[in-house]
Amino acid sequence: MTTAVLNDTKMKTFEELESVVRSYSRGWPTVFEKSKGYKLWDIDGKEYIDFFAGAGTLNYGHNDEKMQQKLIDYIKQDGIIHSLDMGTIPRKNFLESFQDIILKPRNLDYKVMFPGPTGTNAVESALKIARKVTGRDTVISFTNAFHGMTVGSLSVTGNSMKREGAGIPLHNSVFMPFDDFTEDQNSIAYLESFLEGQGSGVALPAAIILETVQGEGGINAASMEWIKKIEAICKRWEILLIIDDIQAGSGRTGTFFSFEPADIDPDIVCLSKSIGGIGLPMAITLIKPAYDKWTPGEHNGTFRGNNLAFIAAEEALSNWKNDDFSKAINKKATILKEFIQAMVKNYPELKAEARGRGLMQGIAMHVDGLANEICSAAFERGLIVETSGPNDEVVKFLPPLIIDEEGLEKGMKMLEESIQHVLASK
Amino acid sequence: MTTAVLNDTKMKTFEELESVVRSYSRGWPTVFEKSKGYKLWDIDGKEYIDFFAGAGTLNYGHNDEKMQQKLIDYIKQDGIIHSLDMGTIPRKNFLESFQDIILKPRNLDYKVMFPGPTGTNAVESALKIARKVTGRDTVISFTNAFHGMTVGSLSVTGNSMKREGAGIPLHNSVFMPFDDFTEDQNSIAYLESFLEGQGSGVALPAAIILETVQGEGGINAASMEWIKKIEAICKRWEILLIIDDIQAGSGRTGTFFSFEPADIDPDIVCLSKSIGGIGLPMAITLIKPAYDKWTPGEHNGTFRGNNLAFIAAEEALSNWKNDDFSKAINKKATILKEFIQAMVKNYPELKAEARGRGLMQGIAMHVDGLANEICSAAFERGLIVETSGPNDEVVKFLPPLIIDEEGLEKGMKMLEESIQHVLASK
Amino acid sequence: MTTAVLNDTKMKTFEELESVVRSYSRGWPTVFEKSKGYKLWDIDGKEYIDFFAGAGTLNYGHNDEKMQQKLIDYIKQDGIIHSLDMGTIPRKNFLESFQDIILKPRNLDYKVMFPGPTGTNAVESALKIARKVTGRDTVISFTNAFHGMTVGSLSVTGNSMKREGAGIPLHNSVFMPFDDFTEDQNSIAYLESFLEGQGSGVALPAAIILETVQGEGGINAASMEWIKKIEAICKRWEILLIIDDIQAGSGRTGTFFSFEPADIDPDIVCLSKSIGGIGLPMAITLIKPAYDKWTPGEHNGTFRGNNLAFIAAEEALSNWKNDDFSKAINKKATILKEFIQAMVKNYPELKAEARGRGLMQGIAMHVDGLANEICSAAFERGLIVETSGPNDEVVKFLPPLIIDEEGLEKGMKMLEESIQHVLASK
Amino acid sequence: MTTAVLNDTKMKTFEELESVVRSYSRGWPTVFEKSKGYKLWDIDGKEYIDFFAGAGTLNYGHNDEKMQQKLIDYIKQDGIIHSLDMGTIPRKNFLESFQDIILKPRNLDYKVMFPGPTGTNAVESALKIARKVTGRDTVISFTNAFHGMTVGSLSVTGNSMKREGAGIPLHNSVFMPFDDFTEDQNSIAYLESFLEGQGSGVALPAAIILETVQGEGGINAASMEWIKKIEAICKRWEILLIIDDIQAGSGRTGTFFSFEPADIDPDIVCLSKSIGGIGLPMAITLIKPAYDKWTPGEHNGTFRGNNLAFIAAEEALSNWKNDDFSKAINKKATILKEFIQAMVKNYPELKAEARGRGLMQGIAMHVDGLANEICSAAFERGLIVETSGPNDEVVKFLPPLIIDEEGLEKGMKMLEESIQHVLASK
Repeated sequence: MTTAVLNDTKMKTFEELESVVRSYSRGWPTVFEKSKGYKLWDIDGKEYIDFFAGAGTLNYGHNDEKMQQKLIDYIKQDGIIHSLDMGTIPRKNFLESFQDIILKPRNLDYKVMFPGPTGTNAVESALKIARKVTGRDTVISFTNAFHGMTVGSLSVTGNSMKREGAGIPLHNSVFMPFDDFTEDQNSIAYLESFLEGQGSGVALPAAIILETVQGEGGINAASMEWIKKIEAICKRWEILLIIDDIQAGSGRTGTFFSFEPADIDPDIVCLSKSIGGIGLPMAITLIKPAYDKWTPGEHNGTFRGNNLAFIAAEEALSNWKNDDFSKAINKKATILKEFIQAMVKNYPELKAEARGRGLMQGIAMHVDGLANEICSAAFERGLIVETSGPNDEVVKFLPPLIIDEEGLEKGMKMLEESIQHVLASK
Repeated sequence: MTTAVLNDTKMKTFEELESVVRSYSRGWPTVFEKSKGYKLWDIDGKEYIDFFAGAGTLNYGHNDEKMQQKLIDYIKQDGIIHSLDMGTIPRKNFLESFQDIILKPRNLDYKVMFPGPTGTNAVESALKIARKVTGRDTVISFTNAFHGMTVGSLSVTGNSMKREGAGIPLHNSVFMPFDDFTEDQNSIAYLESFLEGQGSGVALPAAIILETVQGEGGINAASMEWIKKIEAICKRWEILLIIDDIQAGSGRTGTFFSFEPADIDPDIVCLSKSIGGIGLPMAITLIKPAYDKWTPGEHNGTFRGNNLAFIAAEEALSNWKNDDFSKAINKKATILKEFIQAMVKNYPELKAEARGRGLMQGIAMHVDGLANEICSAAFERGLIVETSGPNDEVVKFLPPLIIDEEGLEKGMKMLEESIQHVLASK
Repeated sequence: MTTAVLNDTKMKTFEELESVVRSYSRGWPTVFEKSKGYKLWDIDGKEYIDFFAGAGTLNYGHNDEKMQQKLIDYIKQDGIIHSLDMGTIPRKNFLESFQDIILKPRNLDYKVMFPGPTGTNAVESALKIARKVTGRDTVISFTNAFHGMTVGSLSVTGNSMKREGAGIPLHNSVFMPFDDFTEDQNSIAYLESFLEGQGSGVALPAAIILETVQGEGGINAASMEWIKKIEAICKRWEILLIIDDIQAGSGRTGTFFSFEPADIDPDIVCLSKSIGGIGLPMAITLIKPAYDKWTPGEHNGTFRGNNLAFIAAEEALSNWKNDDFSKAINKKATILKEFIQAMVKNYPELKAEARGRGLMQGIAMHVDGLANEICSAAFERGLIVETSGPNDEVVKFLPPLIIDEEGLEKGMKMLEESIQHVLASK
Repeated sequence: MTTAVLNDTKMKTFEELESVVRSYSRGWPTVFEKSKGYKLWDIDGKEYIDFFAGAGTLNYGHNDEKMQQKLIDYIKQDGIIHSLDMGTIPRKNFLESFQDIILKPRNLDYKVMFPGPTGTNAVESALKIARKVTGRDTVISFTNAFHGMTVGSLSVTGNSMKREGAGIPLHNSVFMPFDDFTEDQNSIAYLESFLEGQGSGVALPAAIILETVQGEGGINAASMEWIKKIEAICKRWEILLIIDDIQAGSGRTGTFFSFEPADIDPDIVCLSKSIGGIGLPMAITLIKPAYDKWTPGEHNGTFRGNNLAFIAAEEALSNWKNDDFSKAINKKATILKEFIQAMVKNYPELKAEARGRGLMQGIAMHVDGLANEICSAAFERGLIVETSGPNDEVVKFLPPLIIDEEGLEKGMKMLEESIQHVLASK
């Protein structure tokens, strides 16, 4: 009760002045003050382990020293902060490093578009160019997809509550079952039957858009085989393949792009969230040169030139100069996977299953409300972790990729205690 | 030719690695390095006067000293950079200052929504909530309106090239003539006849959205009388009035909100661009409490919590604690107005007319291509100024509001020289 | 009261078994049994003068003797009744007569499409082919237009009650003011400004569709000058001009096509209602050969081959072999016009104005509910006449074109008595 | 060649004056003159057996004597031909007979709506009322569905060529796999997973619309079990079930409604084609009284009152006063089924399978173009039979229900000869 009263005081400004649409400040009712690496502290000095990473935006952790220093230096020398798509040094440096460190070694050939600083800008630009170059309108998306909140992106997003928020019917999209969406059925054969059939009611689409691991949709990781088959379908029907790597990219699954293990070559790739390195708004759309058919300015946006983000983004790329970062992620991913499997096994009351890959994993719990209770209990214990999935049924683990094993163990321990606490209270 | 060669070298990275969609780096083919107040410098050390202000994002000038210092201090103390809609100190401070300095003294009652960090996020959220609370789908927009590039905002944007970029028909919007769009006709009577007629084909709309001064659309300033009449129409038919003050707000026209002289009370207001103070991505949507009917998280976005922007934004608000800032803007607006009128009068070959109000003014030139040539000549001379309007027929003046009279005169002089140069070459 | 009880009995079947959507049987609560020329009789033997003509379907009157005989002969010889678009003798004969009697003498060159037997089929096919051949999606329609009740036609229909009936937002149409829709404003200049403006929000349309006299919309007759200007606009921007002559065509305004006096050459013309001669379902779409770009069967329909209708339709065309029919219509139109003007002048309490041309005229009454009351009083007196207009404010006169002057005078007399009766009761 | 020349002459009028959209007159290039029962004759006196029945419109055969006589009598007594939805005797009689002979004995409770005289009018009205009463926009339809050619009906029709004919993207519909559309997969489980999932991207629909046997889509007969499951799904989620019985109803499958063997109680039923008895345009929409929530006139149409059709329709209903008609259909259906199975077995080169039920059967041939060749050969031999299916891969048998066994055998024999001829020519 004391806490509640205190919270009331602490959260008063948000409760009174901010729109009721706010969400995270409800589940984590405190005011955060400081953060470093995989830790945060609130104004009461309480420490939190971060298994959330800004919903996948802080892969490189909070307040990386080198990034901080570069930002400070740039500000001190009166560097250009805001530049739309004018030429600036940080933009130039980022473009060059991204080419040299990321694209070339992976044998990928893309033009880089700055579509505005958020994920939904990247998705909207991807849909536009795909429709323009193919002359088609439909885009195929998958069940439980999440691609953004503006009308174009929302049209390819599955969540019904978010879709209803548009207040208008959403058009030009067709949803197909994601890998394993329907038990015992073959989602690839299903999709093919709709494309093959001249009477299927589904027009030849401009593009297929997908996340290789669906984050908001419930940590559903497509198999590499499924992803490869989708690419083959795209090639067969000359459909553009758009990978939305906004959450699963930037190393989250162990490789820079989440689709690397599938050995595919998408036509368009959307990146945002952790591409900005330190959590500043930034997004890019990668487009195969053959499809880069924009009229200058046909898509634009005021914040395409967020130079502080470019600086941190370039610094972040240095992690990818060799394999060490990737190997470290995979090692921690294995630890996390084992932990999750232990939870599933040791706590059958959770009716749980393990999900995900890399450091994008989750425990899906088929008991109503349970995942939310566990996340609340975790918050009380000092662990920041949230749910995902259409019914908030998944406890989602997105620790910063730079977390050390000690931090990981500590977080996992708090989570197990939270599980025990919630189950005990039943 | 030498310049061209040099440019080729300077711009190589952008030309080779970036998407062809880039636009500003074409008209201003250089790499900018530093900026302060109303000036920029490129990597060759050339100085530029800024009559563009990041398309209205840098009302407070480049690299304001106090803002810089606060950013540096915050970074140094490991302040939270990225926080979605979690509680943080900069978010709290901004909310409180915005309430105390902006809303209360103007007797305005709004909930503040953080819809994502760009203007189009603000517009999309405004359209969503208007449709949700009214249960209607149509939104009335005006000719030459510009509200953003994502499908929802683009649907209420007039520009045909941008609309075609969507690759799909855009729905749920109806365009009405903006003040003075059609000569000798009464746009208010026209709009009313469509609303009154049970056979007009135009459904009762959820909202009317407008910019009081259309920036991208050609610096078309609606009269206060027209704006008041639109508000009266909204009240009569219980239509929500959305003011998109993304470019015209934050002091651009002399008052914080551009609609203050019309003495109206909009239901929803969109702010972005200069709301972030120093050019960092930020946007807010102001919603009358009665219409703040969101489900938590019904609209969201990764970069709703850009704390560096909140810090600069709060510092920027301090300009509005008394009338001095407003008075200074108006004084400079008068100087600019007189200059524009002189140009119109002295150079009849321009077939020009004066447009706009506050420090959002323009010269519309009814000679094909002329405005663009003048802007190019200005760039050569060290003045950053761009065109707007459906046919790029307007030279648009958006100097930082903090520009001093010396800077203003210097810029105007360069512009006149550019006019003379271009006219001489004919 | 006795009548009410009788009606209750008479109308029981319709009230109990039929959907509440039924409308005419409410205003005219009786069961009709016989009809001939311009007269109907109900099961009680009461005679009615017909100023309605099946909403413009019975231009040639009820049960024309020659048509009846040809139908009976055809049925007796086991002629094909239903033939889709197979070749049959009546189809052949109609095509040839239509070519020889209607198209050739007017120097018009069209392919004849049988799009299904109703007006809305003709409009839907017109919209489809216009969109197909231009590759554009928008169609411009006019305030108070009525083109049909299926989703494509309804999208270009203005009436808000009917539009809401769709239960979905209606897209791909833009409404412009019909001639004289807004007082003292120039609807042509207005339309042009939307087409010229690159920022108007209105895409270059596939087609402009219009009725030269709007029937359901309130007997609004466009001036010939206005119609010519619309045609000029279409030519200038390469927009297809579709004339919906379903109600105003087939002689209703004095010439076979309603647009003949304007001397225009539409790209597509829709005909239905009286094209079938005796009231049997039939419609045709006339398409300039250059735009007849269908794939075989791309549009189809079960009742494209209503042979009984073709037989009556061909017989009806014989009225057009010389000018006599046309002259007779015009003579009666003058009588009707004078009557209407007298009513407007003699009964100022009606706050009325005269509308329409040919035998498609009306009295618009700017007193709520008055037109309906007058039509009810007329029914009591034995005159079938209905209202139109967005607020049912117009008493609409559509007598069969074959009515004689005696019948016309008799009907007008009943109408005047009805006016007097209703005004007296106030 | 002589035939070709003759045809050229015969078909000249259609080729020269009619739109290229015509289709049946291409496959059957002759001019038909007479018809009776299950036979037609062309102007050359050639006799044809009819296995097509006007695409299911002539279930009661051509020119039924009683119907003919009643039409002639009515015309002779100057009966009202065209009446919109005014009360007339034929409308009254039809309503009463339909209630007494069809609805009551089957324990079905529906209001009868006359939505206009064609199938697509019935479907459009069904979609409207379903959307209105539920307040939802999406309608679920099935692969290979055919519901009509106007934009509303076309949106729920699967055929891609027909859909593209609209020239605009078609919205507010979602296609699910029809029974057996995808091999070895469970279409019911699939549909349920989309409805259950809060993240499936498919909104709760207003209605599910289906044909129990898809005619145009390839004679795909859903199992009774599947139909029952669809009804259960509708009940569970409060979705309206619309049965489009336009082709499969009116006895085509052996019972009056095609869904009777499934023992379901649909919310809305669409009837057209053979409901008019003799091939005259007519359609009705049956609506559960609880959903009959129209505003008077909210949906309308000029040809809602086709009295000649009502007369033939009422006469046709007399076939259903006892079981004899139904039994006779089933007997002939068995003969036809055995024939088809024999063809499949005896001619393995056809790579064929049997499809359909009642007198709505087909042979699907998985060899490109074969079905069309066989239909052409049949026409040469005097048999009218057409293909269906998304790739015209099915030879479709729709003999008039009144055909006698001799006629059936004769037609089947001609078909076998046609198969032999075509196979021999390979």
